[in-house]
Amino acid sequence: MRAVVIHEYGGPEVLKLEERPEPQARDTEILVEVHATSVNPVDTKVRQNSSAQRTLPLILGFDVSGVVVRCGSRVTQWKPGDEVFATPNLFRNGANAEYVAIDARSAARKPANVDHATAASLPLVSQTAWEALHLRARIQPGQTILVQAGAGGVGHITVQLARLHGCRVITTAGRAESMAFCRDVLHADEVIDYRAEDVVKRVHALTAGHGVPVVIDTVGGDTFLQSLDCAALNGQIVTILGSNTGDRGRGLLYRNVTVHYEFVGVPTAHEIEPDRPGNILTSIANLVDGGLLRPHVSHRFALEDVADGHRQVETGRTVGKVAIIVRR
Amino acid sequence: MRAVVIHEYGGPEVLKLEERPEPQARDTEILVEVHATSVNPVDTKVRQNSSAQRTLPLILGFDVSGVVVRCGSRVTQWKPGDEVFATPNLFRNGANAEYVAIDARSAARKPANVDHATAASLPLVSQTAWEALHLRARIQPGQTILVQAGAGGVGHITVQLARLHGCRVITTAGRAESMAFCRDVLHADEVIDYRAEDVVKRVHALTAGHGVPVVIDTVGGDTFLQSLDCAALNGQIVTILGSNTGDRGRGLLYRNVTVHYEFVGVPTAHEIEPDRPGNILTSIANLVDGGLLRPHVSHRFALEDVADGHRQVETGRTVGKVAIIVRR
Repeated sequence: MRAVVIHEYGGPEVLKLEERPEPQARDTEILVEVHATSVNPVDTKVRQNSSAQRTLPLILGFDVSGVVVRCGSRVTQWKPGDEVFATPNLFRNGANAEYVAIDARSAARKPANVDHATAASLPLVSQTAWEALHLRARIQPGQTILVQAGAGGVGHITVQLARLHGCRVITTAGRAESMAFCRDVLHADEVIDYRAEDVVKRVHALTAGHGVPVVIDTVGGDTFLQSLDCAALNGQIVTILGSNTGDRGRGLLYRNVTVHYEFVGVPTAHEIEPDRPGNILTSIANLVDGGLLRPHVSHRFALEDVADGHRQVETGRTVGKVAIIVRR
Repeated sequence: MRAVVIHEYGGPEVLKLEERPEPQARDTEILVEVHATSVNPVDTKVRQNSSAQRTLPLILGFDVSGVVVRCGSRVTQWKPGDEVFATPNLFRNGANAEYVAIDARSAARKPANVDHATAASLPLVSQTAWEALHLRARIQPGQTILVQAGAGGVGHITVQLARLHGCRVITTAGRAESMAFCRDVLHADEVIDYRAEDVVKRVHALTAGHGVPVVIDTVGGDTFLQSLDCAALNGQIVTILGSNTGDRGRGLLYRNVTVHYEFVGVPTAHEIEPDRPGNILTSIANLVDGGLLRPHVSHRFALEDVADGHRQVETGRTVGKVAIIVRR
């Protein structure tokens, strides 16, 4: 099969289109014919080896939308021909290839009313957003939620899911295009221009001085520290990056704050809670089919141009998602 | 009334016995004749001004066991003569005095089968332990809990409450006396000598390599970092100090860890959840009266010797609690 492989860590140029053997599906796995995948920041980080060590060569691409072509002997819920979408195991080979083997329980039926590229833009970011909001922060209707970088991949799904759950959403953006997207497409309640305004002050002004009960930080670094400063008494911050608290500990103590570190790949990597990803994606598919959740694909590249997709994600300016079309 | 007052920050010598006016009880408060109070680390920190700024002069002592002598006009649940125990508001005057005014809802009936000194050793540490275990980490029977410094004030109540809830408790101690106390009096399941053993390695050895789902850190600093390293996948750390994560963020991310900052004074200081402290202390009193929870008072000092109580707490070697006897 055609696959984009990395044999060494480095820039986008290490992504090489090659002929590779088809993966074998284990007993509990399905082999999926990949119609589309997407580029997430985790792809670029693994490619640069800024993350944990991997075994090379490696196929990236941790989203898939496609068609089941083979089922392992213990798989009962799928049959060849079924259209599914899923996040492949983040610690094995991904979907920058014509075929990928995934745990049958991690997949859900593809949303019917969107194409494969749009469906492939969803799994990783929507599971992350869902877990952050519902499993970690346990948001409640009426709460005010701050989403850092609402126009981004995880951000644009988080804003929508929080609003669907009855929350008031404050979000941040840095360019005219991103701000307009947050306001006019995502319908965020408040959009803060983080380049022009002091985000911490503005969040307090928007919350009668209290700060917010929940912050979803999709940026990390200084934005994580800013997120800590935006949390109200008994507030919660969910970060999807490996951020440190700097010198904020004492302030966090005097506000009874909770910090959740959320990495969506953990259950799959450690083979715990195998049904969780599929269950979440089933809910996501229902929302998409009902027209309640609208994933946004701003760029599409062919598989052989996946390096350009990496370059686009690395600009840090992508509105929504970068899809990779594997089969037309 | 007699009271020990600080007019300046500094060593134990700034604690001065003086004559002061009796406090006024507001509408929702009760005036309590103090029979005993205790010394907590928060007293020594405020005295040194290592914590937030206060207005001087100030009376420390953030535990009380005593008798109601006057009730504010809106107080219905207490009458003069009732024996109560409570944590005075951590941001107002405390109980190093013959009388203290406290929110009526923050008090609970004193446990009947212990003396005032023993009852006064409970409120702050037992509310902290209860909130850490039940409100923050939400412990479950069968879980393994690591309690850092099990022989300490918060530690010795935390070990007992976790065991009462059906948890297996691993705890740390550093001296023969503390280790024997954890083993023979508290009946901790495992006691790690943190001076002789690598705590992180030993915790992993005791948990089939997984680490623990819940750590209660009562020490902070390097012990907090060690606590982070002891947390299992999806683990939770509750710290009662303003500790920072150092460089541990990435590891926390890849294990989906949650960090809770727990400061028991927050609700009272901000006048939110006014019934919480009294409700928790009512449960604590029931456990004490049933013989299920045994607070340990290792040192007793008279009010005029409260400075010696501070010196004892500052050794960091106190087993259980230091009580201050105000009325014999």
